[in-house]
Amino acid sequence: MPDAAPPATVSRLITYLRTVSDLLEQGVSNTSSEALAGATHISAFQIRKDLAYFGTFGTRGSGYDVQVVHDRLREILGLTAVYNVAIIGMGRLGQAITDYPTFGEYGFRIRALLDHDPARIGQAFADVTVSDSADMARVFRERDIEMALITVPVHAAQAVADQVVASGVTAILNFAPAVLSVPPDVAVESVDFLAGLKRLSYHLRGLPVLRASGRQQPV
Amino acid sequence: MPDAAPPATVSRLITYLRTVSDLLEQGVSNTSSEALAGATHISAFQIRKDLAYFGTFGTRGSGYDVQVVHDRLREILGLTAVYNVAIIGMGRLGQAITDYPTFGEYGFRIRALLDHDPARIGQAFADVTVSDSADMARVFRERDIEMALITVPVHAAQAVADQVVASGVTAILNFAPAVLSVPPDVAVESVDFLAGLKRLSYHLRGLPVLRASGRQQPV
Repeated sequence: MPDAAPPATVSRLITYLRTVSDLLEQGVSNTSSEALAGATHISAFQIRKDLAYFGTFGTRGSGYDVQVVHDRLREILGLTAVYNVAIIGMGRLGQAITDYPTFGEYGFRIRALLDHDPARIGQAFADVTVSDSADMARVFRERDIEMALITVPVHAAQAVADQVVASGVTAILNFAPAVLSVPPDVAVESVDFLAGLKRLSYHLRGLPVLRASGRQQPV
Repeated sequence: MPDAAPPATVSRLITYLRTVSDLLEQGVSNTSSEALAGATHISAFQIRKDLAYFGTFGTRGSGYDVQVVHDRLREILGLTAVYNVAIIGMGRLGQAITDYPTFGEYGFRIRALLDHDPARIGQAFADVTVSDSADMARVFRERDIEMALITVPVHAAQAVADQVVASGVTAILNFAPAVLSVPPDVAVESVDFLAGLKRLSYHLRGLPVLRASGRQQPV
């Protein structure tokens, strides 16, 4: 039995969770790997393999109980716990994130806001007052912060990441368009606005280029 | 030869492009599928297969020319063109996006900002004045808008998406935590802040659950 699933599997599990959440909302109680395949564009074989990786979710031939899969995926993904989250960088983006409506539903609780700008320190967003980022280590410790969202400008992102790591947090969600360098025990996920745009540009312009492409040969 | 690559391939191509862009910045001129595998956590076999799908990028045994792969990937992904982009919803998130520094580099030009709030209409961000979203069809036509970023609150997202589609735009980047329903010829990509947080929660809490998981059996 492996200790952890590969990142691509985790991403697919998140897709499955979103899909079964939608099914629950629609009042659907039973599904199959084929139905999930139709909704997710992931093959039924891959879905069966991914879910089997974490134990038995259903009975061969009778499909999956949607509620069971939903609850088990939330458990596997660690989403039954509550996480204390800090946002570092309270410019427009940091402020916008405090408006995001569904954090709480998944147990992500915004417990600290930090900035180094005296004009922002002391302001409140979503009932949390902005602290001085110079006090990061103390704020993280006092509020049991487990995840840090970095929403500072790109030139400041690495220095802030270093400070986050020095303050003992090992999970970073990075919004700056920069590749962050962190120790191997720290997990960084990036929210990249451009990746979505690039996929759209492929949609708008990709086909003619593809049609003109040539031979297939491994290198 | 297939007409279009599957979405998962396109996502990986975007990862390869980001990696070879980093290599170029570091002055690296030659690479291999094994080196790319190390940087991307995608298998060397998968990388060779993906790149071969679009033609010949290198010579067997001598690796890939980084500049050639970079330029070809930009071409495949449609990133050598310039795209006129509109942002709909000029609250904090829409405003934050106008600050995003690297849109221009990839040819995404913010040409229109729209909102329905009279207090926002007429304000300017990044040298673009906010238009009334009631004029969407005219604004899109006059400015040749090809992509729309939807940054309105979640309850308004579907109605705005309908208006975007009615205004003739077929590529939407959706920031609202809502699944949008659009005709089959319209491409929607979502920027989901929660997906990154969920992967981080797996990092923080996933392992104990995994270790407790049971048998593997396809369903």
